[in-house]
Amino acid sequence: MPLDSSRTVRELEELRDLTGDENGAQRVAWTDIWETARGWLRDKLAAIGAREKIDVAGNQWFTLPGSSERAVLIGGHMDSVPNGGWLDGSLNVLAGVEVLRRISEGGKPPVTVRLVNWADEEGARFGRSLFGSSAASGSMRDQDELRTLVDKNGVSLPEALAAHGVDLDRALDAGGELESAAAYLELHIEQGPVLESLGLPLGVVLGTFGVERHRVTWRGQAAHAGSTPMGERRDALAGAAKLALEIREIAARTGDGAVCTSGGVVCRPGIVTSVVETAEQLLDQRHLDAEKLASMLAQAKEASERFAAEERIDVEFERIWSIEPILFDETLLGFCEDAVREVAGTAHRLPSGPLHDAAEVSRAGVPTVMMFVQSLRGLSHTKLEDTKAEHLELAVAALDRLAAKTIDWVTAGSGARACADARGPLR
Amino acid sequence: MPLDSSRTVRELEELRDLTGDENGAQRVAWTDIWETARGWLRDKLAAIGAREKIDVAGNQWFTLPGSSERAVLIGGHMDSVPNGGWLDGSLNVLAGVEVLRRISEGGKPPVTVRLVNWADEEGARFGRSLFGSSAASGSMRDQDELRTLVDKNGVSLPEALAAHGVDLDRALDAGGELESAAAYLELHIEQGPVLESLGLPLGVVLGTFGVERHRVTWRGQAAHAGSTPMGERRDALAGAAKLALEIREIAARTGDGAVCTSGGVVCRPGIVTSVVETAEQLLDQRHLDAEKLASMLAQAKEASERFAAEERIDVEFERIWSIEPILFDETLLGFCEDAVREVAGTAHRLPSGPLHDAAEVSRAGVPTVMMFVQSLRGLSHTKLEDTKAEHLELAVAALDRLAAKTIDWVTAGSGARACADARGPLR
Repeated sequence: MPLDSSRTVRELEELRDLTGDENGAQRVAWTDIWETARGWLRDKLAAIGAREKIDVAGNQWFTLPGSSERAVLIGGHMDSVPNGGWLDGSLNVLAGVEVLRRISEGGKPPVTVRLVNWADEEGARFGRSLFGSSAASGSMRDQDELRTLVDKNGVSLPEALAAHGVDLDRALDAGGELESAAAYLELHIEQGPVLESLGLPLGVVLGTFGVERHRVTWRGQAAHAGSTPMGERRDALAGAAKLALEIREIAARTGDGAVCTSGGVVCRPGIVTSVVETAEQLLDQRHLDAEKLASMLAQAKEASERFAAEERIDVEFERIWSIEPILFDETLLGFCEDAVREVAGTAHRLPSGPLHDAAEVSRAGVPTVMMFVQSLRGLSHTKLEDTKAEHLELAVAALDRLAAKTIDWVTAGSGARACADARGPLR
Repeated sequence: MPLDSSRTVRELEELRDLTGDENGAQRVAWTDIWETARGWLRDKLAAIGAREKIDVAGNQWFTLPGSSERAVLIGGHMDSVPNGGWLDGSLNVLAGVEVLRRISEGGKPPVTVRLVNWADEEGARFGRSLFGSSAASGSMRDQDELRTLVDKNGVSLPEALAAHGVDLDRALDAGGELESAAAYLELHIEQGPVLESLGLPLGVVLGTFGVERHRVTWRGQAAHAGSTPMGERRDALAGAAKLALEIREIAARTGDGAVCTSGGVVCRPGIVTSVVETAEQLLDQRHLDAEKLASMLAQAKEASERFAAEERIDVEFERIWSIEPILFDETLLGFCEDAVREVAGTAHRLPSGPLHDAAEVSRAGVPTVMMFVQSLRGLSHTKLEDTKAEHLELAVAALDRLAAKTIDWVTAGSGARACADARGPLR
């Protein structure tokens, strides 16, 4: 079948009607509706003879065997958050379906082409995202903790997995699926406002941000709001307020897409008649450059010490979570830029703030790139998530061109070699 | 009996042992322990023949009849918060006991002298402070609301009152007790750090602060901490942070003891991955001068509008509570200053941040003054509340001198006349 980008839009609507309701998409992983979506996908691909395989981590693979076993992968995820959007994850998969249709029309391709529907990207039911892709990449090293996770009905993760044929103890064996992978491509909605603000339909994703996440605790002294003169106060909120404003200066000084966020401050005792004794502040800092990210954190700590001294209070940083930046493959970035330019005229490079399955595949040593399509109003994880149909169609066409360029490249002998050693320390 | 200031300290210790435990004072109003304290007080005053009366609001009066019915009142409260301090309220009463002993020694005084133990100053059990004094002053105008109050065990305020012989519907009749009042005197621990920081044992209280209390709600837009560039954000926390810092400038510009406090900020969604959409901020502003207080509020509102415009967010002020400043009587302030100077050498004038029963009596039109004694570390409402014994003794001596000067003044025909009309609009 020739590429028909409008078919992707129609199929996204079909999937929405099949697996959503008036509140949005309901394709939460490890549920019946998710299985319905996987079965529907199976039916769609049966027509072109793609071989299906569910791996030991629950990832659903469709393979068009080529003259070489070396494989170009296209990935996405059919699972959604509860009351989710119609595009997050499923656009990626259905655009891949259309690309496989176009390739299958040309007879046996020179290299193998595989579409993967990653299991439980969202982590909506158990709070652990990137389940299937982290099993395949080998970065899933917290199985003891995973065993303890329960959903809101008290069902454990291992029980839920077992009901869908997955054994947590064996999930890491999914890594075998990446052994033949030469390159990985993923299309995704941006889930942010950048492309819309630039008036561009498509963007080339440089990589995923590194993240430094801290709980910053300020400790002062509770004191009566009426009887304590201003000069006698040791106000924990003053420290948090100064840092909430300072992180914006840090991001501006750092540039290159740097973002810093204080998502909240919890004040104790938190009553109108008392100076704040303790303020627990959330701090999230992201950058694509590991050194710049480290500098941003150092600046936040240095400023906090200064504020603590000014206010005669104490401050303590506790790391909640961190991840290094993931930079996508330079050659594939070039192919992606060419593909976007050919289809949409202008190619803009931007980092991804959210994590994606592509980051896991990249960490496993597979050359990887992502393409973004504009999100309207930057909204995602809500039924209000939307993208113009004309932009969705451009995205399918651009992904197809990117796939063609990547297949040519892999056919010429480039891309990751089918050798476990090449995967690096993460394997 | 001649004045024996050290006896007051011993009696405070006796009361502490009788009505406290390892966690502090437990004299919560409308409880058995509170009645124990009232009975103990009754026994103390029986020796000097003071006539006891419990008024219809539960206030406990002890009267030394004088040649004139016009009365000088000395007041305090025996009730405490749970796990409270040994001085808050009971110092005032027991210092008054010692003053009555000294006066009774001189035979019938020229004017009547009354000691009042106000009922439920703290409002610890039902959340409504100044119960007895607001009934007497006539400012208790919320009886329909009072009827609905329940304690944590589900006992209603009217039930608890009835168990101690008080009928809420008749409480306002306690106003009759103030008809003969010519002046009102109250000693209290400072509950703040000012006198300690000045190295002074005693202070003259100018009045009680007016208070403006608001909930300031900032409304921006939730947005992903990773995918939303800094320039695209509408961060509600930024507004709250700017105001938390700006109110300190407002207080400094206003001076004369001005205090502004942001006791807390509640952020929504309040998660590490999202820009803050809504920040609800508590604001408390206090000043002794009504015009300056109004200006402080106006400055906070004006600055907030400016911050909202800068951050492209919305802001709304909602008044939670307010009270006008209460200024004490100029003549009595002079007497108090003389008494403090005679006893302690230096007299410092300062406002009271917390409210006191004295404010209610003053609102009723009775010339009123308060004296503060130093609090160690400014602590109160905790078993750590403390004042040096030598300062407590100075306080008793100074209150006695203030009482003597006030009796002379009233004897000479000054002070409030026994006339309901003089009480002004509050009656």
